[in-house]
Formats: sequence, structure tokens, C-alpha cells
Amino acid sequence: MTKSEDKHVFRFGAKTADGTGSMKNLLGGKGASLAGATLLGLPVPPGFTISTEVCNLYLKTGGLSDKIKAEIKEALSFVEKTMGMKFGDSKNPLLVSARSGARQSMPGMMETVLNVGLTTSTIPGLIETTKNERFVYDSYRRLIMMYSDVVMEKAAGIEPEEGHGIRQQMERLLEAKKKKAGCLTDTCLNVAQLKELCKEFKDAVKKTLGKEFPDEPYEQLWGAVGAVFKSWGGARAVAYRRIENIPDEWGTACTVQAMVFGNMGDHSATGVAFSRNPATGENKFYGEFLINAQGEDVVAGTRTPNAMNEESKNDQSKDLPTLEEVMPEMYNQLVAIRDTLEKDTKDMIDLEFTIQENKLFLVQHRVGKRTATAALNIAMDMLHTKFIDEPTAILRVAPEQLGQLLYPILDPEAEAKATPIARGLPAGPGGAVGQIVFTSEAAVEWNRKGKHIVLIREETSPEDIEGMRAANAVLTARGGMTSHAALVTRGWGKCCIVGASGLDINTYEKTVTIDGQLYKEGDYLTLNGTQGLVYSGELPMIEATENPRLKEFMGLIDKYRRLGVRANADTPEDAKVALAFGAEGIGLFRTEHMFYGEGSDEPLFLLRKMILSNTRAERLHALKELAPYVKQDIKATLRVMDGHPVTIRLLDPPLHEFVPQSKFGQEKLAVALGISAEDVHKRGEQIHENNPMMGHRGVRLGITYPEIYEMQVRAILEAGAELLKEGKEVHLEIMIPVTIGAAELKTMQLIVEKVYDEVKNEVGADIPYMYGTMIEIPRACMRAGDMAQSAQFFSFGTNDLSQMSFGFSRDDIDSFLPDYLDLHILRNDPFVSIDKRGVGQLMEIAIERGRKTRPDIKLGVCGEHGGDPRSVEFFHEIGLDYVSCSPYRLPIARLAAAQAAIKEKYSK
Amino acid sequence: MTKSEDKHVFRFGAKTADGTGSMKNLLGGKGASLAGATLLGLPVPPGFTISTEVCNLYLKTGGLSDKIKAEIKEALSFVEKTMGMKFGDSKNPLLVSARSGARQSMPGMMETVLNVGLTTSTIPGLIETTKNERFVYDSYRRLIMMYSDVVMEKAAGIEPEEGHGIRQQMERLLEAKKKKAGCLTDTCLNVAQLKELCKEFKDAVKKTLGKEFPDEPYEQLWGAVGAVFKSWGGARAVAYRRIENIPDEWGTACTVQAMVFGNMGDHSATGVAFSRNPATGENKFYGEFLINAQGEDVVAGTRTPNAMNEESKNDQSKDLPTLEEVMPEMYNQLVAIRDTLEKDTKDMIDLEFTIQENKLFLVQHRVGKRTATAALNIAMDMLHTKFIDEPTAILRVAPEQLGQLLYPILDPEAEAKATPIARGLPAGPGGAVGQIVFTSEAAVEWNRKGKHIVLIREETSPEDIEGMRAANAVLTARGGMTSHAALVTRGWGKCCIVGASGLDINTYEKTVTIDGQLYKEGDYLTLNGTQGLVYSGELPMIEATENPRLKEFMGLIDKYRRLGVRANADTPEDAKVALAFGAEGIGLFRTEHMFYGEGSDEPLFLLRKMILSNTRAERLHALKELAPYVKQDIKATLRVMDGHPVTIRLLDPPLHEFVPQSKFGQEKLAVALGISAEDVHKRGEQIHENNPMMGHRGVRLGITYPEIYEMQVRAILEAGAELLKEGKEVHLEIMIPVTIGAAELKTMQLIVEKVYDEVKNEVGADIPYMYGTMIEIPRACMRAGDMAQSAQFFSFGTNDLSQMSFGFSRDDIDSFLPDYLDLHILRNDPFVSIDKRGVGQLMEIAIERGRKTRPDIKLGVCGEHGGDPRSVEFFHEIGLDYVSCSPYRLPIARLAAAQAAIKEKYSK
Repeated sequence: MTKSEDKHVFRFGAKTADGTGSMKNLLGGKGASLAGATLLGLPVPPGFTISTEVCNLYLKTGGLSDKIKAEIKEALSFVEKTMGMKFGDSKNPLLVSARSGARQSMPGMMETVLNVGLTTSTIPGLIETTKNERFVYDSYRRLIMMYSDVVMEKAAGIEPEEGHGIRQQMERLLEAKKKKAGCLTDTCLNVAQLKELCKEFKDAVKKTLGKEFPDEPYEQLWGAVGAVFKSWGGARAVAYRRIENIPDEWGTACTVQAMVFGNMGDHSATGVAFSRNPATGENKFYGEFLINAQGEDVVAGTRTPNAMNEESKNDQSKDLPTLEEVMPEMYNQLVAIRDTLEKDTKDMIDLEFTIQENKLFLVQHRVGKRTATAALNIAMDMLHTKFIDEPTAILRVAPEQLGQLLYPILDPEAEAKATPIARGLPAGPGGAVGQIVFTSEAAVEWNRKGKHIVLIREETSPEDIEGMRAANAVLTARGGMTSHAALVTRGWGKCCIVGASGLDINTYEKTVTIDGQLYKEGDYLTLNGTQGLVYSGELPMIEATENPRLKEFMGLIDKYRRLGVRANADTPEDAKVALAFGAEGIGLFRTEHMFYGEGSDEPLFLLRKMILSNTRAERLHALKELAPYVKQDIKATLRVMDGHPVTIRLLDPPLHEFVPQSKFGQEKLAVALGISAEDVHKRGEQIHENNPMMGHRGVRLGITYPEIYEMQVRAILEAGAELLKEGKEVHLEIMIPVTIGAAELKTMQLIVEKVYDEVKNEVGADIPYMYGTMIEIPRACMRAGDMAQSAQFFSFGTNDLSQMSFGFSRDDIDSFLPDYLDLHILRNDPFVSIDKRGVGQLMEIAIERGRKTRPDIKLGVCGEHGGDPRSVEFFHEIGLDYVSCSPYRLPIARLAAAQAAIKEKYSK
Repeated sequence: MTKSEDKHVFRFGAKTADGTGSMKNLLGGKGASLAGATLLGLPVPPGFTISTEVCNLYLKTGGLSDKIKAEIKEALSFVEKTMGMKFGDSKNPLLVSARSGARQSMPGMMETVLNVGLTTSTIPGLIETTKNERFVYDSYRRLIMMYSDVVMEKAAGIEPEEGHGIRQQMERLLEAKKKKAGCLTDTCLNVAQLKELCKEFKDAVKKTLGKEFPDEPYEQLWGAVGAVFKSWGGARAVAYRRIENIPDEWGTACTVQAMVFGNMGDHSATGVAFSRNPATGENKFYGEFLINAQGEDVVAGTRTPNAMNEESKNDQSKDLPTLEEVMPEMYNQLVAIRDTLEKDTKDMIDLEFTIQENKLFLVQHRVGKRTATAALNIAMDMLHTKFIDEPTAILRVAPEQLGQLLYPILDPEAEAKATPIARGLPAGPGGAVGQIVFTSEAAVEWNRKGKHIVLIREETSPEDIEGMRAANAVLTARGGMTSHAALVTRGWGKCCIVGASGLDINTYEKTVTIDGQLYKEGDYLTLNGTQGLVYSGELPMIEATENPRLKEFMGLIDKYRRLGVRANADTPEDAKVALAFGAEGIGLFRTEHMFYGEGSDEPLFLLRKMILSNTRAERLHALKELAPYVKQDIKATLRVMDGHPVTIRLLDPPLHEFVPQSKFGQEKLAVALGISAEDVHKRGEQIHENNPMMGHRGVRLGITYPEIYEMQVRAILEAGAELLKEGKEVHLEIMIPVTIGAAELKTMQLIVEKVYDEVKNEVGADIPYMYGTMIEIPRACMRAGDMAQSAQFFSFGTNDLSQMSFGFSRDDIDSFLPDYLDLHILRNDPFVSIDKRGVGQLMEIAIERGRKTRPDIKLGVCGEHGGDPRSVEFFHEIGLDYVSCSPYRLPIARLAAAQAAIKEKYSK
């Protein structure tokens, strides 16, 4: 092969190719894969790829050199020869497409022009060869529309006023034509109408853009190629590259390829196929096709497609003939293609094909999308047949897909036949069937009777907690993905749909009207919480977690993983779930959790008493009363975690969160405390804050009220000591939140050491513990070196660290975050996926400095990012020791951690 | 001299010394300065310094080696010989002190023991030589108190329960003794009572600490030396070192020195002196002394001290004989010492001396503290006599002192004679005299009549603005240093005292009662706003800024300064003041300022209309109406700044700040807008935020409502274009606030460039402008490299950057910041002085990354830190181009910048 510097155009077709499947840098993804498939001997429509280097040259010089034009013409004549047609010929004209293709996929960012070569002089020949005048004029009007927009307007740098772009003008003309013809779809226009439309289009081009629509094939070709190259420098593509960190100098390649048509009569067809069943993963060729049709027709659904073979039949296609039956030769060729491609990619692939007059063309192929179930089954099948190895199998299931496999789900087959009666936001995953109730009390009561319940509420509040726990699923008419119902159920891994606005709830009558139908208490509904769909009646469920293949798959993961996994858990119940899902410890036990929810009345009252104390003496007294509750609470979870480390965070939220806000609540507290409601209110006002997120919380409470932290530390150590006597193993990790530097840590360490000595003397036993801190304030990242002098571990609180680093209050971002995502100013919601380039860099600085001081410092993450696969991969890369997340996210974190380790190994 | 490894004890005395004045590392500050003075031939009481290396050894081994003890004994015999006395001698006993002294001053952090060597066997001898039994027993009880606390309790590691420390017990015994004697001060106890007390003290030592008080001189000495060394490892000293970044291995030296006494009879005396007048700076020796007295007596003020010479006489001492008269020989020796020390230090010094039986001792000397006026005069005098050079003169006035020289002040002499009638917080600097009024309206009216006014209010609110402006000073009964009155007047550089709780104001009667005296409207009061003092009647004032020496001094500064200085100014008035104070441009023009204060009614109404718009069309309409006001506002300030750069920040605060909060205000707006008050309220609620500091503000508004920024940019460019036509010079700098990364900047840049092209076409002129951003979010520091692709300048918004980096809401820190400062967790309020080790590091990262992308990027600061001297020094060090601060802080910033440049040059 000639050297790339000398060669700019790479042909493919007739089983030969100048390039290969691995030359993505020069040929782009599309050009390389077409070359690869051609070299595999597959019947790809011939074409050629103009290299990315030409793109750079083009953007510098503003045109194609004569030398390159000559190369292109030479390649085109190869295509003509291969196809037995001729570009611009009046008898048997060859049409081509021009498509962009960069080294890395940039979906929708760049341009494509189809049907290039169609002119007044080639139209008659194409009508003659296709016997389909309507098709030809429809293709022509598409060419005019696409070309005038992409080439003549955009690539020429014309910026029309809003609503006056050439494409919009043409769309209005098309609408008007359809209206006049009294029809709704494009396909209803007849030849005469299409001819009129083409004329109107060309007139509009002349009038708006000031020149004729090009009627010369090569003029069209040069324009199309240039437009593809220019689109690399378009505003959207540039914005996308900035976000994705793609260098400008990569450039795009331009692939010019012969167009083939499946609508040239009864010996022509078009179809799509998967090498295996994409829903179930079953190892059967699966697909559908249409005789005498274009690719768009299969997708549009205007005609019912035929099944490829018996296995692919469904209700609609069950009586239609299969490809295997009507074109057995073509079918056999397709099966061979399928086998070749699976062997080559070692994965399930999907492919598009066109049969043009009994000649089969592979138009496109790529790795096929699949359901979570299919992903698991295909991976395990391929592993069992030794088609792929273990690491590859592990990489084949996306962590987020795994999430879908962990919950009971609706039987997919049954669901496919049912019609949803309402839709909402998919707040809690999995599926559920139950009888509807309308109050928390009813949910508790019906649950006691052993019934399955769907709790329906306008929206939920903390008073509904017990009912929500008793219910199998929760359905609300209002609220978003961060509403109370969504947050609570997601934490529990419970099926939930929120914001289902189609619900008209009458709590008094205990009825709900959905889509005009009245449902009464006790009626059955079925929920798909993964997709936010509500069905009437009872649909069958499957327990996906019982899937033996899932168990086998999860068994593979842990030996590849370096990153440890822990759970954020505050109760014995959560701790048990965490262990069942593979937790190696608790990474975040929130001591304040005991003041929320069931059984919290007495401790909460004592806490409030402490908060409202006017003197240190009063506060000490209240703390003394509170201490036994705190110890009991911690001990219960420590007992479950026997032998596993538990990181216990001292009091974190600002105190005013615990002062009752309602007048009634304040009065109740006042009576109980024997002070005036006015006093309660006043004290609440005193501790009110303008920006509570950045206020008096975490260690700042420990500094101003050391007695609070002292009580907590004593409770922790005493709980540990008592369990040691019971013969349990305890690994305590005492964690200080919201620290800004070393001095706070040192100050609190003195308290911890003092209490430790006291408790040790009292119980006469060593209680193993570590001392450490959250890293959740940007300044702490800068001071991590000093902080590691006291801290034996850092746990990155990525939620708060993201808030402070961005200056984003999570409670307040709804007003602008959607715009930031839409405009590609941010790639992801930084509270979902860690912001590697900002927050991540702060973490890396903290890690480097912390390790410098204390090389064996333990490093973890306990923000919600710990359960996000992309974030987990990053945490692996920057060398954390563990991530901690919600118990239900643990399998996802484990898989993400294993994949990160595998990718790292393979990339080296 | 022997090598330091071999030598541990360094003698000084009799004009020789083993060490020198520059050996601070080995001898500590105190040991080195005593050695230095001795070598200058000055009569320092002899002694020796045990080196810092011994401290490290001591702390490692827990004691002094025999070799070192022998060295100490040898040095002690040198002291004995020099003094002609003997340690532990029953006839003529030598007493010594043991003091700590580290390389760097750590005030109050470490221990001192005086009178070491006083025992039952040496007491009689000392009584004999001093002829003062009372003095001896008073010294003895002081030794017991100090020694048992410092050596026997603290250094022994005994931690008594609160209130049960040995010192506290002794203090209670002392109180009881005084009560019994019916007297109030220590000095009234007679010999018998002091003897009893010494016995009681020794009993307490035995009972509490379980051993006898040591009665052997060497035992006392070893104990005292050990305690000094151990105090290096004390908790407070360790905390201090942590904060000040002082390495533990520095250690402290221990200086043991002969005690000398000025109370041995009429040929003894003690005094303090300044080489020049510390109040005025006049070049006259200045001091006072007492015959037959101890140093404490001079300070205590129980006897009226005599003046040193005629020049030092004051009202009290004017009829007493001077030292020059009664001890001319001693006086002449002192004058010689003064000259020697000034010559050596090239600065004004203060010194303490003791005359023991006609023998003069220099006990201590150091650079003398002085008033701002004295600092300026001494610096300029010494410069004029070529005693020091220009850079040294510039370093001799502290920037904060300069602040005191910039305002009219009360005549210090007159003030010294007057008694304040009330005290408050010194909120606005300088002095003022005026007639009191009680309402804003009255202030405006009286001011129109040409009267000088002091406006008295309970506290001020925005409605008082015009009255505050009209008044010469503001005095409030309530509010702290961040109250409305304090903030507003400080910005104006206007005299103000807040929180003067002694004021009983009756606004209805137009009277105020202060200290029992009734003052009516029109009565005169005088305020010292620099110290928070209120005087009755009219005190004379001096215009310090007219001081020709100040002008000369300010003239020196600018040629040494590298850092540019700009002002934060939003009005033509502020801009004029800024230019007068030396501003080289405006570093922060807040576009939102026009919506506050006088004349803001119409623009504020239009802004509110815009905010309450429901649709983009409505918003565009309101913006169109608002635009001319915005342009006018910007143009007025640009005109004043003719030729200087002006950085204009686009809209920054969250919109809800502008929605009226009161029901009345909402109703008024509703009527004006023709919508319901309910709608106004609702819209206000919609944009309410939980943490507004981290909410929808700055560029986030520009992203969601690009039309707002577009209007502002157009107004800026049109204002510039119009001024260009008027023949003015404009240097616009358009600044985007609250950015988190490059994408926002790029997005806004497209708007700016679009509007620029449009305006340029309309006016047909190039309008010079730069485009840049605030760096005020931690993430922006990480992304500065990318941001510099668009930004031609960065202006660090250190207020917000400090808030986000610390996670401190400035509005909410009162609940914990005082504790953080008290406990030395923070060295300074980070909103006053930049936090170099956290926020400063983030800035350094941003600078490095920004410069890497754009080497000539302009870098400034526009937070309030720009006017803080310590921060300015840091900004110089990290290489910023300019600082911007309140106009009244400009001279301070200029001086701080010059000093930073000089220090940098000298340190190289």
C-alpha cells in the first residue's frame, strides 16, 4: 500500500479495499468499517473514502486540489466499473451518497447528502432502470431539499433569519402541497405533484440563494464533499468537540458510496436484522424485511414487514411469507454474512441490507443494541462457547443495564401486548402488581393482611413513610425525580412512579380516575417503575434476580475488581440488604438518621431539647438523656456488620433542620419543654440561615458545641466495647464532616482520644478504631496534606464537593441546569456523574497531597456518585480504595469497578 | 568561636558575648538581641542563653546532660563574677530569670520564671542588701506562684480539674488575704501578711502537688530551665505553630539572666523611654522614670512617674524633677545608649532601664510602637537626614496606619483632654463634628442650609441613604460592623459609630439621652470614628490629608510599585474620588448598582417588569424600555474615566433580590403592571432559592435569558461608541460573572461578538474592548486553562471564591467564626485577609493554567481583599497585574503594593 501522505482516497468494493477496518484515524469510523466488511468478502456497495487529512487541507485552503480531484475521479471510475453503471450517465446513471465519519462517533453533528448525481439528464435513465417514476422524483425532491440546505446554504456560511432558511421554506411548500392534495403523509403525493414540488423547490433556491440548483453531476459531487468537510467546522460540531475533548485537528473523512435501491421491483427488497434476538439474547437470526421498498419504509411502519424466518415471526407477521421462503438464496447469503460478522466482531451485530434486483448488499452493520436480559444471555452464551473470555463477557453488560436485572420486572412478553393507561416519571425501578389504596394507614393495614399494595398519593410526605414501606409500589400524581417519593423509594429499591399527571385522585371517595376509567380501593394496577408505565389489572411478573445466569455473572465480577465496595446504610435492615448485595463494609453511617422516621419520636424530642438549651449545663443534661438512644442505634447496625468496617459520621446537618417549622409543632415542643412557643420560635429564627448549605454544620457544630461530638464519640466507642464483649468483631471508623483544614481535625482528635482513653479505662479493652474525615469542601482538597497528619482515611463527599466546587445549590439548579445540558455547557448533571475535569481534579490534588503525608491513607467516596458507573470508573482510575453507595446500587458499582479494572489492564 | 555542635551555652555581659545579634536560629530572638546589645557595649545585665538545640535534646531525652549542666554552671559563675554576687549565697545572693525565646516571636505562648534563686537561706541576705523586706517577700510569693504553676504543675503534665489549678488556688488565697486586710490592691499587703501568704502558698503546694516547694537554688534553676523547654511542646504553642507554619524542630532557646532591681533605695530607679516622641515622631528623647521602684510600678500608675527631661514633661509631671536633673550622669549614659541603639537599628526604639544603686542597666530594647502620625514623621525625618533610604522609609508606615492619616481627625491633643460620653463600634473612620438630627429628612434639610450634621438613628435602613449622604457622620444605637450603616459609610469613607448602646433615642421628641444628659436637635457632638468614641460639644479637627509630609510620602510610593491599582466604582462620583486617590482604572463596575439608591425608581420598575415577564416577548419589550437607562448609567462613569480602563460586570445577583418582599411593595408593583398581587407574589416564590449564593445568578442568567446580557452588552458598546464620537478615549472590559468553565464564556462571547458587529456597523467605528471573566468559583480555577482561550482577562472575585472554597456563607458565619478565630483554627477572618493556603492556592493554579494558554492574560482582583494590605502583598507575590478596591482604600493598596515590591527585591 502507498504511504498515507501520498494517498488521499481509499477505495473499497468487489472484495478489495485500499484501507482496513482498523484505520479509523485516517478513514473515520464509517470508512474503516466499510473497508473492513469489504475485505471480509461481504457485498458492500462499492465506494471510496476521502481521508481526514484532506479535511484539514480543505479547511485550510478552502478547496480540493486538482490532484485530489483526479484521485477521486479515478476512484469513482472503480465504483462505476464495480456497479456496472456510470455517474452522470443518461442511460444507467450511478447515484452516490456523501457521508461524514470521524475517528470517534459524533452523532448528528455532521452532514450527509444522498442521491448525488441526479440531474435533469440522468432522471430519464433512472426512471427507465427503476421503472418507478414516482420514486425518482421523490428522490429528486429529497436531493434538492438536502443539498440546498446543507451545501448551498449552511456550507456557504449563509445565516438566514429565523424561520427563513431554505429547508424551512421547502417544508412549508411541501405542507402546502399535501394540504392541496388533501393528504397527510409525504407518500401520498403522486408523480405529478412531486414534479410540481421539484420545480417549486428549484424556484425557491434561485430566489432565496440567488443561483440555480446545480444540474451537473460533478458540481453536485464537489459541493457535497466540500459540505461534509466544512461541517467539521460547524458551530454544533465545534461545541460538541469542546465538551468531548476531541481535538480539532482530527478532522472528518468523507465516504462516497454507490446508492443501491430495494424498491426496483419484486426482485428487490430491504430489511434489518440482528444476529441474535435483541430482546432475549436467544442465539437465533432475527429480522424483518419488505419487498420492493426503501429502508425508510421498514422504519416508518406504513407497511407490515415480513419476518426473516420462522423464529422472527410475531403476531402481525405470522401469516406473511419469510425471506427464507421467498428468496432462499438471498436468505442463505444473509446467514453467511451474519456468521462472518459475528466471528469478526465476536459480538451480536445488527445489519441493514438491500436487495437490488436479486443482488444482496450489506448497507451497514454495527454492534447491536440489546435489552439487559439479552446482554446478559449473549455474554454468558458466548463465554460458555468460548467465543469470548471472561473479561470480555464482563464488559458486555452495561452497569446501568444490570440495574434493570436486579428487580422483579413485568414479564416482557406480557407487557408487550398490554397498553399503558398512564405514564409518569420512572422514579423507583422494577415492576410491581398490587391492589390500590389511598392512605398510608390503609397500606399498613392491608399489608398486615398479607396483600400486595400500590399506594396512590397526590404526592408523599414524611408522614407517609410507613405506608410507603408497607406498599409494594408507590404511584403519585405530582412531583419530580427528586420529590420525596422518588428519593425514598429509590433508596429502598422500591418500584415507584411519580408525576403521573393523568391521575385524578379522590382520597375521600378512595377512587382514582385514569384515562376516563374509575378505579376503586382494592382494584389491581400493574406498574413498570423502570419505564414509568401504569397498566390496568394484573400483569405477570418475573423475579429476575433468581436468574441463574445473573448469579453466575455476578460471581465472575469480583475477582477482576480492585476497588472495594461499601454501602451507605444507617439501619440494621439496610446493613443486611447491603451485605446481601455484596457490601464489604459501611462507608457512610449517618448518625442523624435516627432522628428521622419510625421510632424517632423520643430521640428527636431529646435532640430538640438539646438544641433549644440556653446554657451549656442544660445542653449537657439533654445530651446525657440522649446518649443511650444514640448508643443503641449505632450498636444495632454494628452488630449486623460484625467483622466489617463501619464508617460513622458525626452529626452533619445544621441544627435548624430539627427545629419544628410549623406553629403546631413549635407549640407542642414548647409545652413539652415548659417554655413558651415564642421562645421555641425565636430560637428557630436565631439559627435560621441564608445559605444553610454553607452554614453552621458538620464539624463547625463540633467546634462550637464540642459536647455534642463528645457524646457521639462516647456512644460509638461504648457500643463497640459492648459488642467486643459479646464476642463480635468491630472495625470502627470515626468520621468528621465538613472540615476545611487540619486544625479542626486536630481539635476534634483531642476529644476523640480523650474519650477513647476514658472508655478504655472503664471497659478495660482496646477498641479498634480509625480516625478520619470527609473531604467535601474545596479548601480541604488544598489542605489534604496537612489533614492527613491526623486523618487515617479520607472519604470524599462528592455531593457537597460538587455543590461547592460548582457553586451549585442542588436544591436550586432546576432553573438553569436543563439549559446547561441542552446547550452542551455541561456534558452531564454533575450530581449524577462526577465532573472529572473540575471536581475530579480537586480530588486528584487531595489524593496526591494526602498520600504524600500518609502513603497508606485509606481513600473512599461516599457521595451518590459511588453508585454511578461512569463515576466509579473514574474513582478506579484515580486510585481510590473503595466506593460506598446505596445498597441497591452495589451490584452496579461492583460491575463498574470490575469493568474499570479490566479496561485499565487491556489498555496497558 | 567554637562550633555550635560543641557549644550549648552562650554567655553575654561585660561587653563581651559568645553569640551575636544575628544568631536568632540558635539563640532565639531574645538571646540574640541581648548578645547584640552587649557587644554594642551597652550595660545589659549579664546572663547566658541555652541554645535551641538543647531544647530539642531536652524534649527527646527528658533532661539536661551532665555536660550541659556543667556548661551552665560555668556560665553562671561568669554572671556571678560580672555582677559581684553569688547564686544561692546567703549574704549577697544573685537572683536570675529564665525566659523562652524562639527564632520567631510567639507572643504569650511560652513560659517565664522570675526571681529564681530565692530560698529561705537567701532571703535574709536579699533583705540585707535591698533594705526592703516587703519587696523580698513580695518577690518570694511571686516566685512561688509562678514556679509552682509553670514548673511543678504544667511542666509536670498535671491536669487539674477546672478551677482547681495551683495558681487558681493561690489567687483565691491572695483574694482572701486582701479581703481580710480590708484592701483592694496587692501592694497594700504588709510584710507580715505577705509572710503569712508565702506560708499558705507553700502549704497549698504540698497538699495539692504532693511535694515541698523547692528550697534549693539549683533545684529551682533546673526546674525553671526545663519548664521553659517543655513549654515548646505545650498545647497552645503547638497550636500556634500549626497556624503560623513554624516547624516543631526549631525549638526555643532559654535565656537565664541576672535580675536587677530599681527599688534598692534612692540611688535606684526604673523607667521606660522612646528614642523619639511616639505620638508625634518629634526627634526628642522621651520617657519617664520612678526613683526606688520596680518596672511594674511605672506601668501600674500608682505613683506619678517623673519625666526624663524637659521635653517629656506633661501636666502631671510638670513640677517633678527630671532624670536629667536628679541623676545627670545616668541620664547622659541613657542618651548615649539611645544614640547607639538608633544608629544600630536605624529606627526609633523603645527601651526599659533599671538603675540599681547608681548603676544603669539596659533591661530590654526593641523597635518602638508609634502612632500613624509618628510613623510618617519619623520615616520622613530619617529619610531627609539620609539615615535611611527611600525603600526603608516606605516600609516604615504600616498600610493600615496610612488609613488613619487619610481622614480628617480630631486634634489628638484636644482629644487627650476630653472624656468620651459614649462608646460604640468604630464603623467609619476619621473624626467629625456636627449638630445632631434624628431623621434623614432633617439631615438633608440642615445640610442644604450649610450645616455640619451628625445623623443619629436607632439603626439605619436603605430609606436613610440620602440623609446619611448629607450628614458628616452617622451614629447608631444598634447594629454591628456589618450593619447597614457600617457598610454604607465605610464604602464612602465617612465617619460612623454603630452599636453605641448608651444612647437612649427619642425620635418623636428629637432628643437623645447619653450618660444621663439630654441632647436636643441642633446640639453639638464630636465623633472619633476610628476608635468609636463620642464626645459632647465641639472638639477641634485637623485635616490630616493636607499634611505636606503625607503628600511627599505618597509621592515616593508609586515608583516602587509593580502592582496596578484600580477602584471598585459604579457612579461618576465614585469614579472621581477613585481618580483623586490614584486609581488607574475601574476594576469593577457593577451594572446592577443602578437599581439601588437614589434615582433608581424608574429603572428598578422596568427591571421588575422584565423579571415578572411571562414570555420572552414581554421580556424583550421590558428590556427595550430599560436599555436607554442602562446606557446612560454606564456612559456617565465612562466619561469620567476618560482614557482609563473600565471593567464592566454584567448582571450578577439572583433576580429575586429585585422582587419586592413586602406585601405593600408587591401590591404597588401589581397595580403598576396591571397584574394581581398574587401573581407578583407567586413569581417571587417561584424564583426563591434555598441557597441563593449558589443559585441562579451571574452567567447562569445570561445562559437562560441571553436577551438580558445582550441588552447590557449593547448598552456598553453604544455608550462607548457615543463617547468616542465626543472625542473621549474608552477602554472597555466586558466581564462575565460566576463562570464555571470555558463553555459559558464561549457561549456569551458569541453574543458579545454579534452585538459588537452590529454596533460597529451602526456607528461605523471600532470600539476598543476586551472580553474576560470573574474567577470566583473553585471549578473555574481548575478550568482556567480552557477559559483563557476566550478570556483576555481574569478578575478574581475573592469574596465569592472564599465563600465557595470554604463552604462559608458570609451571611451566616457569625455563629461559628468567632470560635474558629479564638481557637486558632483560622488565623484571620478569610473575608478580610485572603486565605493564602487554601483560596490562594486555588488562585495560583488558575494563574498558572490561564497564563499557559494565554501568556499575556491580564490578571486582577476585585474582591474586598484588594484593599487589605496582607492580601495585596500576596497578590503581588503570585504575580497579579492589579488589585481593585474601594476608592478610599486605594492609598492603602498603593502603599501595600509598594512595600510588597520592596520586600521582594530586598529578599532576593
